[in-house]
Amino acid sequence: MKPRNKREWPLKQVNRLIQTGPVVLVTTAHAGRSNIMPMSWHTMLDFDPPLVGCVISREHFTYELLERSRECVLNIPTAPLAREVVRCGSVSGRKKDKWAMCGWTPEPATVVSAPLIPSCYAHLECRVRDDSWASRYDFIVLEVVRAWVARGVELPETLHHVHGPEFLVPGRRLKVTMR
Amino acid sequence: MKPRNKREWPLKQVNRLIQTGPVVLVTTAHAGRSNIMPMSWHTMLDFDPPLVGCVISREHFTYELLERSRECVLNIPTAPLAREVVRCGSVSGRKKDKWAMCGWTPEPATVVSAPLIPSCYAHLECRVRDDSWASRYDFIVLEVVRAWVARGVELPETLHHVHGPEFLVPGRRLKVTMR
Repeated sequence: MKPRNKREWPLKQVNRLIQTGPVVLVTTAHAGRSNIMPMSWHTMLDFDPPLVGCVISREHFTYELLERSRECVLNIPTAPLAREVVRCGSVSGRKKDKWAMCGWTPEPATVVSAPLIPSCYAHLECRVRDDSWASRYDFIVLEVVRAWVARGVELPETLHHVHGPEFLVPGRRLKVTMR
Repeated sequence: MKPRNKREWPLKQVNRLIQTGPVVLVTTAHAGRSNIMPMSWHTMLDFDPPLVGCVISREHFTYELLERSRECVLNIPTAPLAREVVRCGSVSGRKKDKWAMCGWTPEPATVVSAPLIPSCYAHLECRVRDDSWASRYDFIVLEVVRAWVARGVELPETLHHVHGPEFLVPGRRLKVTMR
């Protein structure tokens, strides 16, 4: 079943969602437990299949759930969710149910077992592709296997993390026209 | 000598310049040749020392100059330079002198041999730290050894690349205040 109010996004265009540098909320689930973690340290690594490299500390609960389930979702939040993003980054999922904390109901993804955060702008369903640099840089390579985006959003107010509770928010699109 | 009109930026805060996802202009130099290349596929990997992982295709002239010199500068441009950013991404430095093409005069950096682009908002002087994943993902780990930023810019209009000649530009800062 498709996520509500979302349309499928072509995998070969995943870069257009992620390479602008938005904070993402990583959702994971394993053996009846689930978590949400904000993450800003990520980069596209390849277009096709879309690979995203990301830094997830081995100390985090998200790392534990990711290593066990081998799956996650990168949910892209926008400005109305900024408060929840900051709160999710201020406490460990080992101690607190962040779904309850944020008042969010998880929605099933379509390919992976990790859930979606319905109020987010976009969702990238991912599988762990390569964790051989987890021990060196906490760096995990994910393959995006399916992607979803909200309908009819012209300028998504994605959150670009500066420091602490502070973000830059896009105000306009700039399109260069070459003469 | 310090770059003109710039102040030094603390190395432990390099993440605040780069993790929001701006396009950067990579400058390199070796044996009398120099180049400029826009790059959006990068991520912070560590705070201290500041490490930045970035994707630079082995086919690019910048890769050749970087591998030989082991040094580069990540220059952060803002909206007034958007046209030059797009032009720099549309041609190879093997064929064209991009400094002349953009009408820019290189300025010496302080620690590395690669030059600065003076009209950019910030500059990260970098050395190659680890290129063992160059063959797997074209992924190079840089260590930032010195950083500079323009004085008195409240909201830098950094360019966040979406696709082709199209960018998102920050319109505001959002600071969450927790009750």
